[in-house]
Amino acid sequence: MDSEHDCCSDKRVVQADKPALLKRMARLEGQVRGIAGMIDDDRYCVDVLTQIAAARSALDAVAQQLLENHLKGCVSRAVSEGNSEQAIAEVMALLKKMR
Amino acid sequence: MDSEHDCCSDKRVVQADKPALLKRMARLEGQVRGIAGMIDDDRYCVDVLTQIAAARSALDAVAQQLLENHLKGCVSRAVSEGNSEQAIAEVMALLKKMR
Amino acid sequence: MDSEHDCCSDKRVVQADKPALLKRMARLEGQVRGIAGMIDDDRYCVDVLTQIAAARSALDAVAQQLLENHLKGCVSRAVSEGNSEQAIAEVMALLKKMR
Amino acid sequence: MDSEHDCCSDKRVVQADKPALLKRMARLEGQVRGIAGMIDDDRYCVDVLTQIAAARSALDAVAQQLLENHLKGCVSRAVSEGNSEQAIAEVMALLKKMR
Repeated sequence: MDSEHDCCSDKRVVQADKPALLKRMARLEGQVRGIAGMIDDDRYCVDVLTQIAAARSALDAVAQQLLENHLKGCVSRAVSEGNSEQAIAEVMALLKKMR
Repeated sequence: MDSEHDCCSDKRVVQADKPALLKRMARLEGQVRGIAGMIDDDRYCVDVLTQIAAARSALDAVAQQLLENHLKGCVSRAVSEGNSEQAIAEVMALLKKMR
Repeated sequence: MDSEHDCCSDKRVVQADKPALLKRMARLEGQVRGIAGMIDDDRYCVDVLTQIAAARSALDAVAQQLLENHLKGCVSRAVSEGNSEQAIAEVMALLKKMR
Repeated sequence: MDSEHDCCSDKRVVQADKPALLKRMARLEGQVRGIAGMIDDDRYCVDVLTQIAAARSALDAVAQQLLENHLKGCVSRAVSEGNSEQAIAEVMALLKKMR
């Protein structure tokens, strides 16, 4: 990480697994478009809802990965630098939104 | 609903609020693309995760609407026709997936 | 079901599997007391949280069972009697609380 | 914290807000007993489920507090001592159980 992308200091973070994350997001975008297509094609509610549940799991998996990256990177760094309080408060607020 | 789109019998359902649902899904697709863009732009993890939480809420809202449509339409019809058992078992299985 | 316990009309419901449900609730009460004991004994946070997750699963399982009973009993009856609208609105409000 | 209760080293943790946590757990135990009583009294499913949702929220609130204590105490300490990897893996596993 060069200074321009220095984690957290300027609130920019290069995700370690960025290509894999982008691939997952592209797949998720396809899932969402597929669900819209199912609704447009008058597909059975239960089948649509099953695909929505799958998309939600995919979204949650990305969130878990980003959260893990965040704990390992930004939060660990903040703790090492003596700024744990703000970093942890931010994580707790985030977990509340993610519930 | 004409016979071709008869709810449940041939497992096809025209959602009563189809245009609104499709609009929501289009907006959600934009949100997902936006999140991918944030990751690509090395945006701060917490900002990305906040947008993911918003997308998840949007997806859940669509699911709630489809579930309500399903209960009001397909399940109510199944109950009236004496097929409640299978319809309710299907709903319970669905709720488990949606958790 | 005799008239005194007639499902829904007077908002009293004898759960079909009442003894099993009560047994589960008794076990859950023990789990909750056990968690309090762990906190009192200064047990490691992660161990306490693991037990809390187990208690939450047990509580969710009881809720799933009651919801299934409710759909099979009260809601099916309401639908058969032409009162599906209120019954389904109530279920949707409940599902929102249970999320 | 004396050496005997030294956080994490011997996996014992005195929660900073132990009396408040124990009071919450006692109240939760009462809620669980109350729910059992409602089932025993043949109370309406929706009323029982509403109380279950409240108990679940109370349990989640205790879990959030313990998780915050854990991040502030044990995890921060582990990070400072260069053991962040194991501590964060443990938190991620925990969050998966708590979903």
